[in-house]
Amino acid sequence: MDRHTHNRHPHAWFESVVSPLVVTAGLAAMILDTAVEPESALDRPLEIVVIAAAVVLTMEFIIRFWTVPASWLREYHGPWQARVHYLLSPRGAIDAAGALAFPLGLVIAPDHQDAQLFVIVWVLKYLLHSTGLTLLMRVALRARAALFSVMTLFFVVFVGAATLAYVFERNAQPAVFGSVPRAMWWAIVTLTTTGYGDMVPATIWGRLLAGWVMVGGIAVFALWAGIIANAFSEELRRRDFLRTWDFVAHVPFFQNLGAAAIADIVKLLHTRDASKGTVLFRQGQPGDSMYFIVSGEVSVNIATGSTTLGPGEFFGEMALLFGVPRSATVVVSRSSLLLVLDIANFRELAGQRPQLITTIETEAKRRRDANLAI
Amino acid sequence: MDRHTHNRHPHAWFESVVSPLVVTAGLAAMILDTAVEPESALDRPLEIVVIAAAVVLTMEFIIRFWTVPASWLREYHGPWQARVHYLLSPRGAIDAAGALAFPLGLVIAPDHQDAQLFVIVWVLKYLLHSTGLTLLMRVALRARAALFSVMTLFFVVFVGAATLAYVFERNAQPAVFGSVPRAMWWAIVTLTTTGYGDMVPATIWGRLLAGWVMVGGIAVFALWAGIIANAFSEELRRRDFLRTWDFVAHVPFFQNLGAAAIADIVKLLHTRDASKGTVLFRQGQPGDSMYFIVSGEVSVNIATGSTTLGPGEFFGEMALLFGVPRSATVVVSRSSLLLVLDIANFRELAGQRPQLITTIETEAKRRRDANLAI
Amino acid sequence: MDRHTHNRHPHAWFESVVSPLVVTAGLAAMILDTAVEPESALDRPLEIVVIAAAVVLTMEFIIRFWTVPASWLREYHGPWQARVHYLLSPRGAIDAAGALAFPLGLVIAPDHQDAQLFVIVWVLKYLLHSTGLTLLMRVALRARAALFSVMTLFFVVFVGAATLAYVFERNAQPAVFGSVPRAMWWAIVTLTTTGYGDMVPATIWGRLLAGWVMVGGIAVFALWAGIIANAFSEELRRRDFLRTWDFVAHVPFFQNLGAAAIADIVKLLHTRDASKGTVLFRQGQPGDSMYFIVSGEVSVNIATGSTTLGPGEFFGEMALLFGVPRSATVVVSRSSLLLVLDIANFRELAGQRPQLITTIETEAKRRRDANLAI
Amino acid sequence: MDRHTHNRHPHAWFESVVSPLVVTAGLAAMILDTAVEPESALDRPLEIVVIAAAVVLTMEFIIRFWTVPASWLREYHGPWQARVHYLLSPRGAIDAAGALAFPLGLVIAPDHQDAQLFVIVWVLKYLLHSTGLTLLMRVALRARAALFSVMTLFFVVFVGAATLAYVFERNAQPAVFGSVPRAMWWAIVTLTTTGYGDMVPATIWGRLLAGWVMVGGIAVFALWAGIIANAFSEELRRRDFLRTWDFVAHVPFFQNLGAAAIADIVKLLHTRDASKGTVLFRQGQPGDSMYFIVSGEVSVNIATGSTTLGPGEFFGEMALLFGVPRSATVVVSRSSLLLVLDIANFRELAGQRPQLITTIETEAKRRRDANLAI
Repeated sequence: MDRHTHNRHPHAWFESVVSPLVVTAGLAAMILDTAVEPESALDRPLEIVVIAAAVVLTMEFIIRFWTVPASWLREYHGPWQARVHYLLSPRGAIDAAGALAFPLGLVIAPDHQDAQLFVIVWVLKYLLHSTGLTLLMRVALRARAALFSVMTLFFVVFVGAATLAYVFERNAQPAVFGSVPRAMWWAIVTLTTTGYGDMVPATIWGRLLAGWVMVGGIAVFALWAGIIANAFSEELRRRDFLRTWDFVAHVPFFQNLGAAAIADIVKLLHTRDASKGTVLFRQGQPGDSMYFIVSGEVSVNIATGSTTLGPGEFFGEMALLFGVPRSATVVVSRSSLLLVLDIANFRELAGQRPQLITTIETEAKRRRDANLAI
Repeated sequence: MDRHTHNRHPHAWFESVVSPLVVTAGLAAMILDTAVEPESALDRPLEIVVIAAAVVLTMEFIIRFWTVPASWLREYHGPWQARVHYLLSPRGAIDAAGALAFPLGLVIAPDHQDAQLFVIVWVLKYLLHSTGLTLLMRVALRARAALFSVMTLFFVVFVGAATLAYVFERNAQPAVFGSVPRAMWWAIVTLTTTGYGDMVPATIWGRLLAGWVMVGGIAVFALWAGIIANAFSEELRRRDFLRTWDFVAHVPFFQNLGAAAIADIVKLLHTRDASKGTVLFRQGQPGDSMYFIVSGEVSVNIATGSTTLGPGEFFGEMALLFGVPRSATVVVSRSSLLLVLDIANFRELAGQRPQLITTIETEAKRRRDANLAI
Repeated sequence: MDRHTHNRHPHAWFESVVSPLVVTAGLAAMILDTAVEPESALDRPLEIVVIAAAVVLTMEFIIRFWTVPASWLREYHGPWQARVHYLLSPRGAIDAAGALAFPLGLVIAPDHQDAQLFVIVWVLKYLLHSTGLTLLMRVALRARAALFSVMTLFFVVFVGAATLAYVFERNAQPAVFGSVPRAMWWAIVTLTTTGYGDMVPATIWGRLLAGWVMVGGIAVFALWAGIIANAFSEELRRRDFLRTWDFVAHVPFFQNLGAAAIADIVKLLHTRDASKGTVLFRQGQPGDSMYFIVSGEVSVNIATGSTTLGPGEFFGEMALLFGVPRSATVVVSRSSLLLVLDIANFRELAGQRPQLITTIETEAKRRRDANLAI
Repeated sequence: MDRHTHNRHPHAWFESVVSPLVVTAGLAAMILDTAVEPESALDRPLEIVVIAAAVVLTMEFIIRFWTVPASWLREYHGPWQARVHYLLSPRGAIDAAGALAFPLGLVIAPDHQDAQLFVIVWVLKYLLHSTGLTLLMRVALRARAALFSVMTLFFVVFVGAATLAYVFERNAQPAVFGSVPRAMWWAIVTLTTTGYGDMVPATIWGRLLAGWVMVGGIAVFALWAGIIANAFSEELRRRDFLRTWDFVAHVPFFQNLGAAAIADIVKLLHTRDASKGTVLFRQGQPGDSMYFIVSGEVSVNIATGSTTLGPGEFFGEMALLFGVPRSATVVVSRSSLLLVLDIANFRELAGQRPQLITTIETEAKRRRDANLAI
């Protein structure tokens, strides 16, 4: 979930491949089992899949709980403190809930099929694999005050609309709008513009109210969308800035610049992970970006042979400087982390930091003279 | 609601705890009472709860109205002018309406149960506790011209769609689309994409119209969302700027800087209220922000002992300067107001105002030499 | 609609008051007449209202068409050229359509009641009174390429979904999903998340498809909202900039500054129309903005008397400079146009243009010494 | 689709006019054919239209596949490599699928009418004509991480809600909520606020859950809209910047400026294609923009005669400099590419680059003295 809990366990392949497969199989079996007849031939196999998944996930939890990586021991005072910390972390809490779900179900529910339903908590495990969720949580936190205000407004409109609908409709449709709690069901279905159609106002006043409730519901949710969009956009900018900064610090080309220049440049670059074998561009294609290598290695293939570029070097600048098509095909030869400078940002940079472009031009000319231009 | 009416009454605990509880209990009792049979055993107790809540809220209003705080007397020419001002303020109007709701209900409605329905105005009291509502009102005000244009457009589409639907459908479904007012009900249900399904066009022209109405409805509300999102984002920026500015002025560290520098810095800081006992960060955690104390006190706990930092001092800078984990655990020892400088903003600041970072670095080195680094 | 057609006719009161009332009365009568029985006592009076409105609007059109204001004659080569231009403008086209609607209805429709339905075109007249519509049209123009792409994408998804739904559902529900055109009705109702419920897929494949169609529909409309929000926000910024610029040029206080300074300041000010008698602020209130008078006159009332300020003067600066409550009550004595400098923007300005704030401070001190501080 | 595949075939008129018409006719015939009775007189003609369209599109594909333009031969090593590249490009893949659709349908489907349904893939051809789709694809790519997180969150809520709804409703409505897969249909219909109304929770817990699911669904999609809006806005800015930059480089007026100045100016200009005969503005109209000619030719008509302006020249500056109405009518005499400087941006530019405005003023004065002012 966070940088902190990453790469702690050596069993990375288990975490990223086996565990999601077991969760998916277990959940699918549980869901399908509710749709087959108890006496069906499929019932038994599906139950076995659920039980098997429960056993695997419980063992995963026990192993994770018991084995404390060396790096944790340095950070905490002892193995038990580290274990408690794991239990209280989102990952640990979800692992523990997943391990306890089925046994707890068997204790609470008299029926075996009902006990199985508790494994629905496994669905939370998917959240641990989503790197963007931390981002979403930060967005929610950033916008919590505004979102809370909108929720209050929504609640006031909701309760008010339900009471008025009850007043307007109770005589016309006593069976349907017979109490405020029933009218509340109508109000939430209408405010969210879901509109099941099971409760529809029939009087003129009820319909006028409904019209305003629908429009008001949309306004409230437009407000909501606006708040989230705004918070999300700022949070995303922050994260990109931080991520790129970390990498810029590793490229010698940028290190001699002052902090002010780096802060400017970081906003113009973005990062790209490229696995081995990726073709970054082909000879003859038009080019719209240049690359700086943070780590890894790329192979530059031109007609007369091929060269290798490693960390700290850059390539692809010819297309940006002279508008010519790519003069080489560049393939990633070892999994690389690249900083990409888009043509739009390159031109902005040329305006803000001309000396940087001059350095790139000098290198580009040297390469062209040496028949190495990319 | 606004800064102006805050902290006027000494009975803050009543306002923030008792009053909302009484409102919630009264509203819940009124709502539930519409769902129970008049001869049910629950009917009487629920009515008593509503009446009790009405008595408490009426007394609250009378006390508030009568007792004029000393601070008001300075501002207004006399106690009665202050009382009139209170009655005309949003808070006073809502308090008065809440006090009058039940008596007025008894006068108007012949039935006791119907009289109770008037207490629905109490729901407005929740709005007084929502600090973000002033913000929402400013947003509505800022975007009123654009929102009014969208409403006009919506109205034109709404009336036009209803008339066309009547023309297309009246022969096919005379009972359902028998008049333009009835077709208006269909138009609003369709424009807002609620879609109850009680009125569905059956002819080819009616369905073509309906398709455009649905798409048009979404376009209008997308416009609405865009307008609100835009206004909201600008208003939020303004408020954060103002709030942070007020606090920056209280931190000596920033006071010697010129107005231009402060305007830059204010955009990079955000504020945080921390109540006593809050753990800001723990030793060994990675750090992504530093803190300036506006008011209150924090306790810095390291292996060799603990120190106390007060207003005007800063901490947590080591993690930002050197990328090391937190070297101390910091706990709030007296409720504090903090200015937080995020790592992303710290780096921006390093670019814009290098001398400020130098000052922080000097202090950090001094602390490290004195084994006090945080 | 645009600056160009404003104030051309001297009958401004007719345009802004009588004409909308006549349109509203005529439309309301037409709409209600569809709901009353032909033999009802209300039928005749409603018809008379529609006919009366049609007569007034036809006369309005003829007068507008015939009388060419002097200002037009200067612009066009002759009165007939000006009349043609009027007919081709949005305003003229809507006026002409409104005048022709009822006569045309009588010609086309055999029934008198049906003839009345044609007056629905009067609803377009509301658009002429909405000053924000020009803005919305510019937004649509600015984003037309992107909106067209989204429409294409929407159309492809729509036709594809309808065909697939027909394939999946035709055997299970031959009466409902019996042809692709019928499935298209389902597709549009589902893509826009209206969901009438008259056509619901029953097969497993049909439901899987429906799930993706719903999610896809929301994605398309989210894209739409994003595009419109973006275009709207830029257009609004442009308009505010232009409007404020025009006024800043009339305030002597800003005229001596260079073009660069003015471009900065314009972004920080906003405009406000204040009609005679408006109380801008009262003595003792906290203040969050200062004002520059573009035109009109305000009266400053303090305990010791009152002063008058006219075009080019400013007031309300004390609250911003020293954080004190308003020391006077300011009332608009002649309808005024004001430039408002919010406290947040005042502080930004203090950073960017310190010399400007110094000028304001000097004037504020002079006023305080003269007991005139506001 | 991209710059790369444009203008490859000389048959541009076929691509932009004939091909879309054939696709539309073929699709319309296929769709209508599902609605007519097999023994209807219309059945045969509609089938012939579909077959004819299939023949034309197959021939289009074969010609495109076989004829390799000279420009491709330079780029690829041989004609077959170019052909394979065409097949693998989006355009080639869609052409091939379109050509194979009907024959494949005849092989798979026993019935002729069913075979026709396969031509639905032709609908993808519309995407090739939409220039904005490349933009939308870049937006999706840019926001893929965030969108994936939202999808994960959506999936977790979806599965969780379905299971809970099954638990709450299975006893009350065993026929409707009889299994988790059935409850999933309810969950997706509710989460997207479509609300068909075929499955409606009846228990109190089911309705409480439904309320949260509706609100949560809207929150998720608001998040989605926010992400897309944000990514779209940045992508659009990038594209406009690049497009304008390319043109600015062709206007001599801007070429002598440094890179920094150009980067500033590019942000303030936008581009406009104007076909022959377009009236850019008329004498006497108020003016709000000036123009720079990148390519083409315009004719400037004033009372005393007319002049011609060509690439590199500018016009319309008088209205911006002195606020006077247009003094000439300007008509495009040869299809032109123009850079437009809006009045709002002109004023920003006056602040940022005063020397540029001075140059424009000097030229304007020269023209006025020579009676050529526009």
